Amino acid sequence: MKIQLALDRMTITEAIHMAEQVDFYVDWIEVGTSLIKEFGMESVRAFRSRFPDKFIVADVKTVDNAAYEFDMCFSAGADAATVMGTSSPATIETCVEMGGRHGRQVMIDLLHTTETQWKALIQYKEAIFCAHVSKDQQEMGKQQPSADQLHSIVKRFGGLEQKIALAGGINLDSLPALIPIRPDILIIGSAITKAFDPVVAARTIKEFVISCKGESRHE
Amino acid sequence: MKIQLALDRMTITEAIHMAEQVDFYVDWIEVGTSLIKEFGMESVRAFRSRFPDKFIVADVKTVDNAAYEFDMCFSAGADAATVMGTSSPATIETCVEMGGRHGRQVMIDLLHTTETQWKALIQYKEAIFCAHVSKDQQEMGKQQPSADQLHSIVKRFGGLEQKIALAGGINLDSLPALIPIRPDILIIGSAITKAFDPVVAARTIKEFVISCKGESRHE
Repeated sequence: MKIQLALDRMTITEAIHMAEQVDFYVDWIEVGTSLIKEFGMESVRAFRSRFPDKFIVADVKTVDNAAYEFDMCFSAGADAATVMGTSSPATIETCVEMGGRHGRQVMIDLLHTTETQWKALIQYKEAIFCAHVSKDQQEMGKQQPSADQLHSIVKRFGGLEQKIALAGGINLDSLPALIPIRPDILIIGSAITKAFDPVVAARTIKEFVISCKGESRHE
Repeated sequence: MKIQLALDRMTITEAIHMAEQVDFYVDWIEVGTSLIKEFGMESVRAFRSRFPDKFIVADVKTVDNAAYEFDMCFSAGADAATVMGTSSPATIETCVEMGGRHGRQVMIDLLHTTETQWKALIQYKEAIFCAHVSKDQQEMGKQQPSADQLHSIVKRFGGLEQKIALAGGINLDSLPALIPIRPDILIIGSAITKAFDPVVAARTIKEFVISCKGESRHE
């Protein structure tokens, strides 16, 4: 079970400093959508340059112009890029093709997707499916990240081949309920980046996952 | 009927040079999603600086983190920003609130939205609705922009109060079929930017709209 550190709502310098601190406890680094939209591909290039051997996810949240955006992310050094599951089939098809052509990963963000869309998406065996409670849903509901919400999304994918990522305000409180889902990737942002001590937070989360023998569905 | 020049798949310098050439024939300038994702908010700031009095649309295509992204666009000088109609209600609600708070416009992109989503969106009287044939749909189908597709989206909104924008490969061939829809905004990209002579293309389109007495639904 991999831990993906999501970096959002900060400058590139702050994001790199954060990643340097917790590097040892996280497996993948996500250059968040807010960094990409605020600073462009410079954010991805900066991470590739500072962390040449780390797996980097560009959370570009493509909804159109798929070949151009994915090429942009991969050229900047990303190992994976994200596309919204709510996009048109043409867009998702192109993203998956681009992933194959470049030998990189494609993560399909299931945010606000319908059951009809899921059924169309399961054809993409090579993609990572990201079950996601959005920042806006979390903030508007003033609620903690809901394991129930993630659970209800993920159980549909229980028997599938695809790798599954879970995202959306995951923290030490919600983690115990998520481990049984056996996700391949746990995407964690503010529970580390906004912690009083990010290093302690990252180490505690990593140790908790290990202590649960947090194996993913594909181990 | 306003003409919005969409600038995509070029550098900031190229985009500004393009806008300078055709400035006289276009009403609004759109800083395209590809510019924002490649160069960040610097793209919006550069346009605000060079065109202090022009109406600038940041095509940020928000799908989450609405307050942060819209604040980012408005702070960079955008007069309007875009949100995907496929986003969660919490995201769209926040974008509309942000527009009101900042006294700026919100454009809801109807790309790949369902009828259920349209019904939920019509509550936002103050938003501009953008009926949109995506780049990927155009490219995969190897088809010219389809007036039929735009028509079928727009006819649902015929009796509504909202302003309507049409987008997606619109050119001189497809324009005659679109004028009767009486859109408030015609979003035109490559028909100008990829033309042999962008100035001639922009002038021809502007003159055509004027010659048709191209009045929008709100004039």
